[in-house]
Amino acid sequence: MASGLLAQQLVRLGLISSTSDHASVVSINIFVALLCGCIVIGHLLEESRWMNESITALVIGVCTGVVILLTTKGKSSHIFVFSEDLFFIYLLPPIIFNAGFQVKKKQFFRNFMTIMLFGAVGTLISFFIISFGAIELFKKMDIGSLDIGDFLAIGAIFSATDSVCTLQVLNQDETPLLYSLVFGEGVVNDATSVVLFNALQNFDLVHIDAAIILKFVADFGYLFATSTLLGAFGGLLSAYMIKKLYIGRHSTDREVALMILMAYLSYMLAELLDLSGILTVFFCGLVMSHYTWHNVTESSRITTKHAFATLSFIAETFLFLYVGMDALDMEKWRFVSSSPGKSLRVSSILLGLVLVGRAAFVFPLSFLSNLTKKSPDDRINFKQQVSIENVVAHYISYDVLINPFDLFWQITIWWAGLMRGAVSIALAYNQFTRSGHTQLRGNAIMITSTITVVLFSTVVFGLMTKPLIRYLLPHTSKQHFSRMSSEVSTPKSLLSSLIENGHGSEVEAGRGHILRPSSLRMLLTKPTHTVHHYWRKFDDSFMRPVFGGRGFVPFEPGSPTEPNLHT
Amino acid sequence: MASGLLAQQLVRLGLISSTSDHASVVSINIFVALLCGCIVIGHLLEESRWMNESITALVIGVCTGVVILLTTKGKSSHIFVFSEDLFFIYLLPPIIFNAGFQVKKKQFFRNFMTIMLFGAVGTLISFFIISFGAIELFKKMDIGSLDIGDFLAIGAIFSATDSVCTLQVLNQDETPLLYSLVFGEGVVNDATSVVLFNALQNFDLVHIDAAIILKFVADFGYLFATSTLLGAFGGLLSAYMIKKLYIGRHSTDREVALMILMAYLSYMLAELLDLSGILTVFFCGLVMSHYTWHNVTESSRITTKHAFATLSFIAETFLFLYVGMDALDMEKWRFVSSSPGKSLRVSSILLGLVLVGRAAFVFPLSFLSNLTKKSPDDRINFKQQVSIENVVAHYISYDVLINPFDLFWQITIWWAGLMRGAVSIALAYNQFTRSGHTQLRGNAIMITSTITVVLFSTVVFGLMTKPLIRYLLPHTSKQHFSRMSSEVSTPKSLLSSLIENGHGSEVEAGRGHILRPSSLRMLLTKPTHTVHHYWRKFDDSFMRPVFGGRGFVPFEPGSPTEPNLHT
Repeated sequence: MASGLLAQQLVRLGLISSTSDHASVVSINIFVALLCGCIVIGHLLEESRWMNESITALVIGVCTGVVILLTTKGKSSHIFVFSEDLFFIYLLPPIIFNAGFQVKKKQFFRNFMTIMLFGAVGTLISFFIISFGAIELFKKMDIGSLDIGDFLAIGAIFSATDSVCTLQVLNQDETPLLYSLVFGEGVVNDATSVVLFNALQNFDLVHIDAAIILKFVADFGYLFATSTLLGAFGGLLSAYMIKKLYIGRHSTDREVALMILMAYLSYMLAELLDLSGILTVFFCGLVMSHYTWHNVTESSRITTKHAFATLSFIAETFLFLYVGMDALDMEKWRFVSSSPGKSLRVSSILLGLVLVGRAAFVFPLSFLSNLTKKSPDDRINFKQQVSIENVVAHYISYDVLINPFDLFWQITIWWAGLMRGAVSIALAYNQFTRSGHTQLRGNAIMITSTITVVLFSTVVFGLMTKPLIRYLLPHTSKQHFSRMSSEVSTPKSLLSSLIENGHGSEVEAGRGHILRPSSLRMLLTKPTHTVHHYWRKFDDSFMRPVFGGRGFVPFEPGSPTEPNLHT
Repeated sequence: MASGLLAQQLVRLGLISSTSDHASVVSINIFVALLCGCIVIGHLLEESRWMNESITALVIGVCTGVVILLTTKGKSSHIFVFSEDLFFIYLLPPIIFNAGFQVKKKQFFRNFMTIMLFGAVGTLISFFIISFGAIELFKKMDIGSLDIGDFLAIGAIFSATDSVCTLQVLNQDETPLLYSLVFGEGVVNDATSVVLFNALQNFDLVHIDAAIILKFVADFGYLFATSTLLGAFGGLLSAYMIKKLYIGRHSTDREVALMILMAYLSYMLAELLDLSGILTVFFCGLVMSHYTWHNVTESSRITTKHAFATLSFIAETFLFLYVGMDALDMEKWRFVSSSPGKSLRVSSILLGLVLVGRAAFVFPLSFLSNLTKKSPDDRINFKQQVSIENVVAHYISYDVLINPFDLFWQITIWWAGLMRGAVSIALAYNQFTRSGHTQLRGNAIMITSTITVVLFSTVVFGLMTKPLIRYLLPHTSKQHFSRMSSEVSTPKSLLSSLIENGHGSEVEAGRGHILRPSSLRMLLTKPTHTVHHYWRKFDDSFMRPVFGGRGFVPFEPGSPTEPNLHT
């Protein structure tokens, strides 16, 4: 190991003139140059209604793969091999952390129950449908030896909505509710996937009974709670340290460094403790944006806001480039090339199952989520105040199936979560390269099918999401200002204002418009509302004085631009 | 390889419960936690006149190494092994880039000839003295089989002034001239080291003649010129693209990402082409701060300024932590433990040679640099204008050896460049683990001696640099304002104002105070001055209109804080 590293090093310093291990430097050069290319092209395509940066990167990645394949005459080099370490240790944390850091907190917490419902129950439904669909449909086809564990793994792999794709395709400012639902679902989804995978390894799969299901539910609860708490703890610790020691006094860079390192530490700790690192780092970002960010100096605020976004942006672009280039690794396609038709059929079946699996929970759960929310209380308040949860309650309401426009909205939720990405690929590598490293026919077919599904869903579904949103929800961008005030009570304009403007009223809505809950009935009928109210009280009287936050910054010499910076 | 990676990944996802490969996640956790610790302790020790962050990190690293050694009962784990890839690919580029980005450009270019003299000729002198000193002194000692190539390598290894240590110990704002000389020398030094190493590998070492020396000089010139040009090209390309495409229009993050990626690309390209990556990325940073930085949006400016500093800060702290922990790798010390006295003697001899080698060029070269500058022209202008190169010319002047205060200043230059760091360790690993990987007695002793010298020089010399500067140059911080105007003509106050204030007048000095050179005599007697004048004309009339820069920003809606931001 050491000698290989050394040789590489010697080559790099120009000390020995071997050409074999130049590869690592060459591949870094290619990657960085392509990243620059993606950024410039992404900038030029900014106004396009079809393309986005992730698809650009994916396409450029595939094209580069083709070029390299042609120049190396079919022998693909190391550049291609998808490294899960690279993905999980370096690329994923900044992306998810930034998502937590920049997420509209109100929007996220107001939809918390819906997000949990979609993310946990929805993923399970999707998992069962895809697993049993695969068992039934693949039974008759000759695709090598796949056991029950493999089929269940397929269910978990293809239930993983890719939160990174979602971040790229949906725009938080244009469609905040859609974004928070689909992205939040993706984050919770990860916890579910990890539990599912653990369950598949440890449990007796042949005898599934109530005890196992109970254990699974308990595991999920434990995982979710501990991951969230770890993230929140990391965020609060950073807020407390920066506030107490007033680190910005000597150096702005130390504050920024401490925030980055604490966030990364919380992710790696979660990974170390077998928790869901994604959930942890997401909540760490959330807490940091609520407390820590307000405790640092003005320039640190600007720096962190943009630096985190930039890191996340580079990681995302790199990831799609990487997935695109990895897709062309010849090793994987060798087995498949003998029977291309079969591989195509497997991919199509999986894609179909993904579509059905998601439909199977989006529509019923929206319906269900409704029935519980359909209380007279909502009806009454509905005319009185335009707060976000009422609008949500209305839209995920009993009459959605009658109102065609609301059906459109559900279709959008369904569609926007169809993309499968790097998480699916990483899980597929985990499952199907363990026993024999693509030597087995069935494993090889599953790996290539995963890549096919990921490429197809990202490119086709991704390309069509923006136009679809514009077509199904046509009033999101144009008629907002004229309708906002005049047609508040019609569903259409409400939706428009919700989608467009949910975050604009973020600050005001929480403080001013909420009626003080006066009774237990309130807690029962409007739980989110009430919980939020008491949280605010707790936050203002205990949390902020200790951990800092908006309005509790110690020595700040006045920061007039502050409200503008973080919206 | 793939299976190892996979196992690691599976462990991380909690899929298999092995404990062997948890190591990588554990080590990342330890490192990140220690980094956080270093930052907090560094903040608390900020007011200390002895400590600095690098020494703190080094001490914490060694302590952690001891703790881990004790807990693993003498079997050191993977955490310890110094990876040159990690150093050269990830840690060094951000540090040197940031140094170039934040360097006082005027100060650097006005001392350009002195820096080149010290960096190139000085390093060569030091190299020869250490090499031949080692040959003579080690001849009688029984330290295994070292050939002539090894001894010359020792010369190159211990001639490498560590620019990272310099950055940490010297303060650009307090002692700008000292900083720019010693740090600039360190950067040029790297180019010299690479050429030396190449020379040692390719040339016939037994028959050194004029042709070989000439080839060496030509190589150095080529390397220096191409590396510099590549860096400048990278910087200019980024400036041109960002200005032409006006990337900040859509996204601030894209601008920042593009700057980071272009800088990294130029470094990796230099490594690919066997140039000096350090020189390239340094000049890329320099050009970017002169052009690109002025073309981006206001928030990008704040972000880049702090984000680059933060990245560099994290990399530096990590590096020292790493060197500290690596020092305790038991593997290396096994051979030495049998004869600790001999190892100690070798280390002491090397340390002595480092001291002598540096003294051998600092004092004579200062003297020499003087003789050439001691023209009547300087004398005349000396009373008229207080521009930096005159002060330099005066201070590195004929009477320095008489004036005790100037001797102090030379001692400071000598002392501040004595530290040896990660570059030395990386080069030592290169040379002495190639043939037999520390199996040979001589190689083992050289590796451990290098570590000893690095630790000793960083801790002892590093600790004493701040107090030494205060003791030898006591007027740098207190008497500046009172002396500035009244005692301009006395050497003492001139030095004070130079050291303190060199960069304060950075902007004005260049434009206003320079007399227009009217003849060829001017170019001959004041070359730096004249070159600078014509460069400014060229810069204003051609470069800035094309590449942007201060005052040539296209759509900037007024940025009043700008001058404050970059100083």
